Amino acid sequence: MSELKNDSFLKALLRQDVDVTPVWMMRQAGRYLPEYRKIRAEAGNFMNLCQNPELACEVTLQPLRRFDLDAAILFSDILTIPDAMGLGLYFEAGEGPKFRKPVRTAADIDALPVVNAEQDLAYVMEAVKLIRRELNGSVPLIGFSGSPWTVATYMVEGGSSKDFATVKGMMMNAPEMMHELLGKIAVSVTDYLNAQIRAGAQAVQIFDTWGGALSPHNYQTFSLNYMEKIIQGLTRENDGRQVPIIVFTKNGGLWLEQIANCGADCVGLDWTINIADARKRVGDKVSLQGNMDPAVLYAKPEKIREEVAMILEQFGTGNGHVFNLGHGIHQHVDPEHAKVFIDTVHELSSQYHR
Amino acid sequence: MSELKNDSFLKALLRQDVDVTPVWMMRQAGRYLPEYRKIRAEAGNFMNLCQNPELACEVTLQPLRRFDLDAAILFSDILTIPDAMGLGLYFEAGEGPKFRKPVRTAADIDALPVVNAEQDLAYVMEAVKLIRRELNGSVPLIGFSGSPWTVATYMVEGGSSKDFATVKGMMMNAPEMMHELLGKIAVSVTDYLNAQIRAGAQAVQIFDTWGGALSPHNYQTFSLNYMEKIIQGLTRENDGRQVPIIVFTKNGGLWLEQIANCGADCVGLDWTINIADARKRVGDKVSLQGNMDPAVLYAKPEKIREEVAMILEQFGTGNGHVFNLGHGIHQHVDPEHAKVFIDTVHELSSQYHR
Repeated sequence: MSELKNDSFLKALLRQDVDVTPVWMMRQAGRYLPEYRKIRAEAGNFMNLCQNPELACEVTLQPLRRFDLDAAILFSDILTIPDAMGLGLYFEAGEGPKFRKPVRTAADIDALPVVNAEQDLAYVMEAVKLIRRELNGSVPLIGFSGSPWTVATYMVEGGSSKDFATVKGMMMNAPEMMHELLGKIAVSVTDYLNAQIRAGAQAVQIFDTWGGALSPHNYQTFSLNYMEKIIQGLTRENDGRQVPIIVFTKNGGLWLEQIANCGADCVGLDWTINIADARKRVGDKVSLQGNMDPAVLYAKPEKIREEVAMILEQFGTGNGHVFNLGHGIHQHVDPEHAKVFIDTVHELSSQYHR
Repeated sequence: MSELKNDSFLKALLRQDVDVTPVWMMRQAGRYLPEYRKIRAEAGNFMNLCQNPELACEVTLQPLRRFDLDAAILFSDILTIPDAMGLGLYFEAGEGPKFRKPVRTAADIDALPVVNAEQDLAYVMEAVKLIRRELNGSVPLIGFSGSPWTVATYMVEGGSSKDFATVKGMMMNAPEMMHELLGKIAVSVTDYLNAQIRAGAQAVQIFDTWGGALSPHNYQTFSLNYMEKIIQGLTRENDGRQVPIIVFTKNGGLWLEQIANCGADCVGLDWTINIADARKRVGDKVSLQGNMDPAVLYAKPEKIREEVAMILEQFGTGNGHVFNLGHGIHQHVDPEHAKVFIDTVHELSSQYHR
């Protein structure tokens, strides 16, 4: 592998010195980019795009051609694992993901195989290798997975949900079944992330999109616990460097102290928390990633600059900040506004790293 | 007006002594009740139901015939105000509320009238009077309104939204327009709640369903500020008793201290916060309302009892707790489970009030 030219992202995750605050955007390879929409249309459907390593590589690299990003993130989906387990993932136009065979009974859960990622998700590993080759050491590549709880919500509900009636019903009425399911997903995610690291991922993020829908004790028991187990099972080394781990629970701001203790190197923040408060609460335990409201990218460039300046000032001097949006970039954002955002982070952050 | 037989709800809101913790459920008059669905079907559409005082009274009283609730809440909708402003509220089957004339431009906002509630929303005041008469002093009646920010999201987006692109765009690119809009809504809400109090509402709740979608400084500026203004303008007296005010910001747990300082008597909590932590943070400033995950009502009765017991224990001894769900009761809940919930609160809470 060629030497890494820009390692500020990896350094910031591990709270090491950097010259400017690194920045990337969740969902940076996506529908707001016309060049993405073109490839997406040619691929026919979303899963074709994920499962074709050349196309996945191409869309991963698209935002890096436009913007001065400090990291690339593998283009894939958090539901590749249940798809590999045989649930039959599909996407219908204008709707969220769906499964042909949702998981509802003890027998459904017993029948679920644990994923062997290198075999069952070989297309992901090929994409990782291809992206690393194409990146050629310019910036690090982030691998990722959904959290067990988040993935389980889709598996049990059979798709997206507003109130999580079925999966929360299972959690409360049959907790042992829920643990069986989460355990299988956690083993699969561990294998999946380790395979991504072996294939070349230089950092990994666990997306816990729906952990924030739980009450505090259920979050600990049914979401955070399984992320801890995964982290304990990860090989944290690639090319002789430590592979940092980011955990992002949307709406998890009330539980920061617990999350900071889960073994991750970095905690992702959504925009509902003041990052100064977050930093006080986690101390030296972890670095922080975030946390501009993605809707700020609808604002005029001056306003985007103002918000970036405010968050940089809130975080203050010193290390341990990776700038990001507080959630994925929205579909209708003007790519020029994303450029303003990224350039401003670099321009205004150097003063905090002297 | 006849004397109030059960005033534990009003007392708990004001942190006065009670024998058992009072309980009600957000959206307690609603689709989970077969008798509600029957009336709703006969009414033809949702707004017919809201606008007919006899029917609104009937559905308000339905849950009180089944359950030992400590308060009734006016059956209405948070969007009656923009409807009265002429935006043309309508509901389509299976979809959320919509407006025929969303508010997008400075001219749209200039043209908006401030609501004169007794005239423009006379049907609400008639319903309040009728409900008070029918309640005959059994339990107090709660009036309510949406918060200006929450109501504005629907007015600007033209209906429900996932990412609030348009309204947040207006907030960021034209804050003076946004303030003009929020100001008009706040004046209207103040008049509306005062009219409800004059008509007989004995407590009022401001529902800030979407305040939690904002970043901390925008929440303060665009949501909490306007709730403070409303509260300053309210007549807090009815039948010689104080009319307590409840503010409920969903996903507002990170901002509890600020919310507790807005002038409300009680802060509503969703289920993502431990109520023991919430109590520590607000101290003697306000009472707390909440906070069981509505999804617990999908669980078996034993589990519902366990969760109620846990929350009562977390709150601990002393006054200032109104038990509630952390959000509205879900449509597919078995009414028998709601009964278990309510009875358990009464049964298990007396030990905390000796």
